Amino acid sequence: MKCRICGKKPVIYMPHHRLALCKEDFISWFERYTDRTIKEFSMFSPEDRILVAVSGGKDSLALWHVLRKLGYEADGFYLHLGIGGYSERSRNKVESFAKNLGAKVIVVDLREEIADIPQLERLTSREACSVCGLVKRYNFNRVAKEHGYNVVVTGHNLDDEASSLLANVINWNIKYLGRKFPVLEEEEGFVKKAKPFCKFSEKETALYALLNGIDFIEEECPFSEDASSIFYKEILNSIEEKFPGTKMRFYLEYLRKMYPRFREEEERTLQPCKVCGEPSPSEICPVCRLKERIAAKRT
Amino acid sequence: MKCRICGKKPVIYMPHHRLALCKEDFISWFERYTDRTIKEFSMFSPEDRILVAVSGGKDSLALWHVLRKLGYEADGFYLHLGIGGYSERSRNKVESFAKNLGAKVIVVDLREEIADIPQLERLTSREACSVCGLVKRYNFNRVAKEHGYNVVVTGHNLDDEASSLLANVINWNIKYLGRKFPVLEEEEGFVKKAKPFCKFSEKETALYALLNGIDFIEEECPFSEDASSIFYKEILNSIEEKFPGTKMRFYLEYLRKMYPRFREEEERTLQPCKVCGEPSPSEICPVCRLKERIAAKRT
Repeated sequence: MKCRICGKKPVIYMPHHRLALCKEDFISWFERYTDRTIKEFSMFSPEDRILVAVSGGKDSLALWHVLRKLGYEADGFYLHLGIGGYSERSRNKVESFAKNLGAKVIVVDLREEIADIPQLERLTSREACSVCGLVKRYNFNRVAKEHGYNVVVTGHNLDDEASSLLANVINWNIKYLGRKFPVLEEEEGFVKKAKPFCKFSEKETALYALLNGIDFIEEECPFSEDASSIFYKEILNSIEEKFPGTKMRFYLEYLRKMYPRFREEEERTLQPCKVCGEPSPSEICPVCRLKERIAAKRT
Repeated sequence: MKCRICGKKPVIYMPHHRLALCKEDFISWFERYTDRTIKEFSMFSPEDRILVAVSGGKDSLALWHVLRKLGYEADGFYLHLGIGGYSERSRNKVESFAKNLGAKVIVVDLREEIADIPQLERLTSREACSVCGLVKRYNFNRVAKEHGYNVVVTGHNLDDEASSLLANVINWNIKYLGRKFPVLEEEEGFVKKAKPFCKFSEKETALYALLNGIDFIEEECPFSEDASSIFYKEILNSIEEKFPGTKMRFYLEYLRKMYPRFREEEERTLQPCKVCGEPSPSEICPVCRLKERIAAKRT
C-alpha cells in the first residue's frame, strides 16, 4: 500500500475513505477535512470568537491545534473537575499546551463553583458521568457568554457521537435524538455549539495528535471504567469489525434521514433561572439546585 | 425463590416481569399471556381462519400448540426449502406434530415451485437468508389465500424482533421500520399477518416447548451460521447482560413511540404481478422473475 498523494509509505489506511496516506499528507488531509466539516455544517467562520472546551485529552487538544492552524480565533476553556490527581495532571497538560500555542486558556475550578465531582456524585446519587455532563454543559455556556465568545466547540469524534447515538436509540430517548447534531444554533440563552471532529474516528484523531507531538493526557478518567459510553463504543466496534463502514453510515444516515424528523418535534420550554439567569427547564436551574443542596449540607 | 402463585420450586425466573413460576403455573401463565398479546394487538379472534407458518422449530410448533389449546382454528403450513437433510428432518417433525395434534398441515415443496434454497442462492448471489425470506413471505401469502385462510401467524419471538429491529436501525432502513409491527392488517392482496409470541424471550418459548414435550428440531439451519440475525442477537444479549430489561424496552418503546412515526411515511405502491397476480413492486414480481431465470437456465 502507498500514500495516494505522494506514493511514499503510508502511516494510515482509512477503509471508509478508501484512502492511505503518509505522515505529511495525512496531517494536511486531516486539517482540510476539518475545515470542510466546519463549512459543511456552517459551524463558524474566522469572524467568530470561539471557545474550545479542552479536557487535556487527545481530541480537544488536537482540535484546538487545528483550529488555530486554520486561522480561527480560538481560546481554550478548562473546567477543573476536582477528580484527584487526574484533574491536576490534565490541567498541567492544558496549561503547558496553551503556553506552547501562545493562546489564552480560561480555567474554572468546579470546587470553588459548587463542589468536586466525587462529592456531587455522592450528593445526587446520580452516575458521576451524568452529573459531570450537566456541570460541564452549564459552565461551557455560562463562561462563553461571560467572556464574549459566541461559539463553544468540543472535540467529540465519530466514535463518541455514534456510540452516544446508539445508546439513545436503544433507549429511544427522543428528546436527546432531537438535539443530536454536529452544530446547534444559538438560542434562548445558549451560545452556538459545534463538533468539528464528528466525522473523524478515534484512531484518526489519536494519530493526528501523535504525529504533531501533542502532549495529551493518556490516562482515562477514573470514573470512565464503568461508563456506559465505553460499553457502547465496544458494542459499535464489534459491529464495525463484522460489517466495516457501519459506524460512519449509522451516524451520517442518522444526520441525513432521521435528525430532521426528530428535530421538528424537539420543543424545549426554557426560562431564565431565577438565581443565575442561565436557561433552565424549571424556576431554578439544576446546577443552582445542586449549589443549594451543597450549601445546606455545609451549614 | 418460590413460585409466585403456589409457592412451589420455580422452573423459571423472568426478570423483566419480576416473576418466578413453577412448571404448571408457567405453562398456564404463558398461554394466558399469549392470548393477552393476541387481544392487545387485535391479531385475530376464534372466528378467523388461521394459518400457522411452521418450520419444525420450537417457536412455531409451540405457537401452533398454544393457539389450538386456546381454541383458535389454526392449521399448519410447511414450506420445504430443499436444504438437504435439515429440511427432511424438519418436515418429519412438523408432520408427526400435526398428527399428534390432530391438525391439518399443508406442505409445499419449494423445489417443485421454483428451486431449492442452495440453487437460488447461487443463482441470485444474494445471501441465502435474504432469498429464503422472500420466497417464504410470498408463499405464506399465496397459500393462505388459495386455501381460504385470512390470517398468517409466525412464531417470531422477542429476540427475533428486537434483533431485526436493531439491524434495521443500525442501517436506518426506514421502509422496513415502517412495517415492523406485531400485526399487519390485510391490504392490497396481502392477508393479515401476526406474531403472537413477540413479547416472549427465546428462553421462554424454549421452556414452554420443552415442558410440553414438543418434539421440535433442535439443529439450526446450516445457512444460519453466518447470518447477521444471529450476530445481532448476540449483540443484544451482551447489552441485555449489562443493562437487564433493555431488549424488552427497546422493542416495546419502538412500538409505542417510533412505529407510529415511521408507519405514516411508509407508502408502498404495489400492483398485481402480471404472471401470478400476487402484490408486486414491479410488473413482474421478484419470485416470478426468479422462476423465469431458473427456467431460462434449464433450457
